[in-house]
Amino acid sequence: MMRVPFSDLHAALRAMLLTLDFEPGRADVCARLFTEVTCDGVYTHGLARFPRFVATIKLGVVKPAASPSLVAGFGAIERWDGNLGPGNLNAYSSMARAIELAKSNGIGAVFLANSNHWMRGGTYGWQAADAGLFAMCWTNTLPNVPAWGAVAPTVGNNPFVMAVPRPGGENVVIDMAMSQYSYGTLSAYEKRGEQLPFPGGFDSDGKLTTDPAAISKTERALPIGLWKGSGMSMALDLFGAMLSGGLSAHQIPRDSLRESGLSQVFLAIDPKGLSVEQMDATADAMIANLHAAEPVEAGKTVRYPGEKTLQVRQENLELGVPVDEELWKQLLAQQY
Amino acid sequence: MMRVPFSDLHAALRAMLLTLDFEPGRADVCARLFTEVTCDGVYTHGLARFPRFVATIKLGVVKPAASPSLVAGFGAIERWDGNLGPGNLNAYSSMARAIELAKSNGIGAVFLANSNHWMRGGTYGWQAADAGLFAMCWTNTLPNVPAWGAVAPTVGNNPFVMAVPRPGGENVVIDMAMSQYSYGTLSAYEKRGEQLPFPGGFDSDGKLTTDPAAISKTERALPIGLWKGSGMSMALDLFGAMLSGGLSAHQIPRDSLRESGLSQVFLAIDPKGLSVEQMDATADAMIANLHAAEPVEAGKTVRYPGEKTLQVRQENLELGVPVDEELWKQLLAQQY
Repeated sequence: MMRVPFSDLHAALRAMLLTLDFEPGRADVCARLFTEVTCDGVYTHGLARFPRFVATIKLGVVKPAASPSLVAGFGAIERWDGNLGPGNLNAYSSMARAIELAKSNGIGAVFLANSNHWMRGGTYGWQAADAGLFAMCWTNTLPNVPAWGAVAPTVGNNPFVMAVPRPGGENVVIDMAMSQYSYGTLSAYEKRGEQLPFPGGFDSDGKLTTDPAAISKTERALPIGLWKGSGMSMALDLFGAMLSGGLSAHQIPRDSLRESGLSQVFLAIDPKGLSVEQMDATADAMIANLHAAEPVEAGKTVRYPGEKTLQVRQENLELGVPVDEELWKQLLAQQY
Repeated sequence: MMRVPFSDLHAALRAMLLTLDFEPGRADVCARLFTEVTCDGVYTHGLARFPRFVATIKLGVVKPAASPSLVAGFGAIERWDGNLGPGNLNAYSSMARAIELAKSNGIGAVFLANSNHWMRGGTYGWQAADAGLFAMCWTNTLPNVPAWGAVAPTVGNNPFVMAVPRPGGENVVIDMAMSQYSYGTLSAYEKRGEQLPFPGGFDSDGKLTTDPAAISKTERALPIGLWKGSGMSMALDLFGAMLSGGLSAHQIPRDSLRESGLSQVFLAIDPKGLSVEQMDATADAMIANLHAAEPVEAGKTVRYPGEKTLQVRQENLELGVPVDEELWKQLLAQQY
């Protein structure tokens, strides 16, 4: 690991995208989103994910020049077609549109069909909360989790995001997939020869296990809350696919390089039209109560989701954004 | 257990409510909601729950004559005060209002403060889906789950509902609390001397356990998805409390008879304004794929949430609604 300035990482990513049929303004935003994800400490979905993003463009799965087009609208809801454009750009403009709709109507929703992997889902929660809005958004994925009671992956892990705005950007943002652990995390534990801290799936005897290798073998990763996460995954999938007119998880290719045609939902709520004088005090009191809770491990503070983000961001802005040295060299040489 | 006709149960519940300062029309609806919950097979929240409901009225915690009043509105969102009225009546009229807002605006949301326990959350999902709308709704609760990393209950289990409309009322409805098992379920396993099928909380050594007695002792019930359900619980609580101007879970009395002043969110989406010709086919294909999945237990079919409801309802309408004989006699004698 080495550290590079935010602006250098942004510039190098942008330069690479300019070689790939990205219009300059779009290359700039797409590169900035990847840089921000890395800077916020979600390393799995930042620079580390960029080579695979480039590969999907070269394969023709992601269309760099495509952007969403409006299909239908009524009041504060709209259906858009993502035209298989870059997932993060599509998602960013969809949340921006949901925010516009919410500013006019108190609430707004965009249902997006035919999009691609949106990288870090939390990005679009932070986008809305930084603008002072509450937000929810989710995406479906290729089938990668067995429905409860099924042997093989049948439903997506369908990441789900909720964002709560607070002053100074100290937003509460939860960004969670419907599987307890991602296959990336399982593989990282397996490489380190470690057991999972909590059961993460079933072994070949159908027993809950903390052995990452056993789970990778069965592909029976555990949904959060067992039957509950399985059911929620289905509901998220149906909301997205039915309202956007796009694909359901089971129709998406089971190949991470060919995963495409995702259905997504972006929902924003602008509280300004209500009488919200006490809103920030309510959040402050809830968080103060949380911080005062007796921790299981002495000395640790109980945290809310997203609490560490601003601190990590500030540290990485000051000291440089951590990048894998090999990936960074390859990026500078435009070798992806 | 014995079975009584739907109309008899409805009439007996209504008669009891008429002794308790309920206006006749409201007694009728409140009794119908309790009857439907029982008829749909959610026995924990039907007649079995009714004596406690009556007790909260007699204690003055639930105000039978109170109904929600509009506090503020902008576009398709509204803030209402529940005035501590009966939770199921408040929730039913709030979802009805969200549906009205959605019919005019494509989407609508009601944020309700100062309400009471809404009994079965799924009721309001079915209400919207039966009218052809998608819906989400949730409530906060008294603190009954430790936040991840905390020793004592700090957050609510905040039941969360998503509903997807399908023709013939074959809706997909998920109704899930943020705890893996309710304390009611833990207590039922303990009484039967059985272990839980999956870990449900921590024992006094801080280890995951399937022993219901050990969990009741520590009060460390497991959030779904461990840290994920804990974070989602906080986000649900903040959405409801901040947007409604009501209480956050930590401000609600930790006494199931005094639990009051709940904050709730009701959100409905009317798909009719979009081009939704393919919508039902999308759901049919998703469900067909699910039913075709190889089950872990041979002979069992993998199901979607809410799938059994219509069948149970039909059976109970035909054969009579199952009720506890003692509770039924007490109800007829108005002895709660």
